[in-house]
Amino acid sequence: MPKKSNGRVLLGHGGGGKMTGRLIRDVILPRLDRGALGPLPDSVVLNGLGSSIAYTTDSFVVSPLFFPGGNIGSLSVHGTCNDLACSGARPLFLSLGLILEEGFPLEQLDSIVTSIAAAADDAGVQIVTGDTKVVPKGSADGIFINTSGIGKLETDIRLSPSCIVEGDEIIVSGPVGNHGMAVMLSRAEFSFDFDLKSDSASIWPLAERLLELGDGLKFLRDPTRGGIAATLNEIAASTGKGVRVTETAIPVDESVAAAAEILGIDPFQAANEGKIVAVVGKGLGSKALELLGDSPLARDAAVIGEITTTNPSKVVMITRIGGSRIMAEPSGELLPRIC
Amino acid sequence: MPKKSNGRVLLGHGGGGKMTGRLIRDVILPRLDRGALGPLPDSVVLNGLGSSIAYTTDSFVVSPLFFPGGNIGSLSVHGTCNDLACSGARPLFLSLGLILEEGFPLEQLDSIVTSIAAAADDAGVQIVTGDTKVVPKGSADGIFINTSGIGKLETDIRLSPSCIVEGDEIIVSGPVGNHGMAVMLSRAEFSFDFDLKSDSASIWPLAERLLELGDGLKFLRDPTRGGIAATLNEIAASTGKGVRVTETAIPVDESVAAAAEILGIDPFQAANEGKIVAVVGKGLGSKALELLGDSPLARDAAVIGEITTTNPSKVVMITRIGGSRIMAEPSGELLPRIC
Repeated sequence: MPKKSNGRVLLGHGGGGKMTGRLIRDVILPRLDRGALGPLPDSVVLNGLGSSIAYTTDSFVVSPLFFPGGNIGSLSVHGTCNDLACSGARPLFLSLGLILEEGFPLEQLDSIVTSIAAAADDAGVQIVTGDTKVVPKGSADGIFINTSGIGKLETDIRLSPSCIVEGDEIIVSGPVGNHGMAVMLSRAEFSFDFDLKSDSASIWPLAERLLELGDGLKFLRDPTRGGIAATLNEIAASTGKGVRVTETAIPVDESVAAAAEILGIDPFQAANEGKIVAVVGKGLGSKALELLGDSPLARDAAVIGEITTTNPSKVVMITRIGGSRIMAEPSGELLPRIC
Repeated sequence: MPKKSNGRVLLGHGGGGKMTGRLIRDVILPRLDRGALGPLPDSVVLNGLGSSIAYTTDSFVVSPLFFPGGNIGSLSVHGTCNDLACSGARPLFLSLGLILEEGFPLEQLDSIVTSIAAAADDAGVQIVTGDTKVVPKGSADGIFINTSGIGKLETDIRLSPSCIVEGDEIIVSGPVGNHGMAVMLSRAEFSFDFDLKSDSASIWPLAERLLELGDGLKFLRDPTRGGIAATLNEIAASTGKGVRVTETAIPVDESVAAAAEILGIDPFQAANEGKIVAVVGKGLGSKALELLGDSPLARDAAVIGEITTTNPSKVVMITRIGGSRIMAEPSGELLPRIC
């Protein structure tokens, strides 16, 4: 059960699940929503600027700052690029806002900025504007990074849950839960030794291939906070249709499964930072996998389920032993500061 | 003398003066600069997107969160709009990234978001995409806000220090130092009672009027952290020319002057959040003031000085008693968390 907030922000409000949704819906949106562009999305398509532009923002507060497979710097580039990619836009320009805590080691800052530069080069984006603030010791936790990003829509396809119909197929581009599990394991309180690293990467190359499906591609999402459980529930909630997935079809690396077992964390609720969930037309799942083909970013990509008319607004998972259960939306308190 | 950093971030690195410049130049830019767009500016003009777009980002960490004349919410809208306006761009779209500390009162959040909405309506911008993160108690100071913004260049005029030549005139759109002094006075440690509030406002209406000067308008800047001393030194440094201003010509409200005297703060180094410094062609100063005309945002606008070939890269102020002295670039340690 979610805790009572007593009029205060709770840690769970930042988890990306039900509580985050409630905070945004109840406190933030009623003040900001002017109707024209709807609720503040991860990424928005802007018209009226001559060419179609996607725009997004994301703040990064991950703890620890360095984890196997990346750090807050590379993550801040990949996360924002991936929100643009999921709009169907090629990421082009990023802004970089740094909030530094007094006393933060310049050597770590240098290492983080070096990762930002390498990730940007790798993703083909330019960091074009920036801002740096410093707050007194104790007023922040080392470094927080905000990146916003501008991308260009190169096709007329507009991805939206409203395009989704019964029979559409759901794919995931690879094994799930790696980022969340890598960050959890790198926290000081755990001392298990797993060969496991974050999947942090720009997934635009995958989105670009899937866009070749034309209007057979309905929807893309990067399953970050709250994992694929949050993304699948978002699809069910926003379409009002049912989502049915098959547990054995969802790829999970052995090391992730083992770590999840020990830590008592559902890998389907653990964050991903280099994966994509796509909804494609009926019968197009295998074509989508073919398009993803031999990309190293799409190792073990799979069709994991489909859209149904039964169980409206719910995600039902056919379990390993053949039963079925609801895959609930994460409440959000499980994995704070995962990105 | 600036403190030695011993390899760590110091509070002065965030003051917007020399130390900030050094941090960005020595630690951040060498990693990020890819040559194409030069050092990370406050705001950048993006080409290749069909129409000319200006793009900027700013993080806000002001303390206290509420001050006479505004709060961190309205400030976060005005600050980003003003960076766009100083590129000569009409502000159109903002993103909103919130970092909340666990335990932050929802009532304060509501009040801040309400101010954001009102400021956006007033400035004619839409908030179109957002992100909310929560960090544990003690890992942030209440709330930090990042806004990034997209504006549209409506003329072919490209404002740049490279357009500035000897004899050009410098104007300021009104009395200086109000924001910095209002925030300092509202800190708990001071208990003086002045009738003094922040000038926080969107200055696009002023920029729009000045753009009517065509290529007679050379450069615009909102003199925020470090005040007009930082802006004038930026002009001197980036042009390699001299800047000469007359102390008695620079408008300062009586209450600001009195507070500055008591606190020992130079009002020329105190932040402004609703003012504009403009460089216009020789002989165009009075025409610029005429264009600003009766705008309530431009009360007491004045021509304060000109560009010289003497004293290259320096700002020289003719003092009240007729002498002259160097107006130094603020080192940055004076006024932390002013925006």
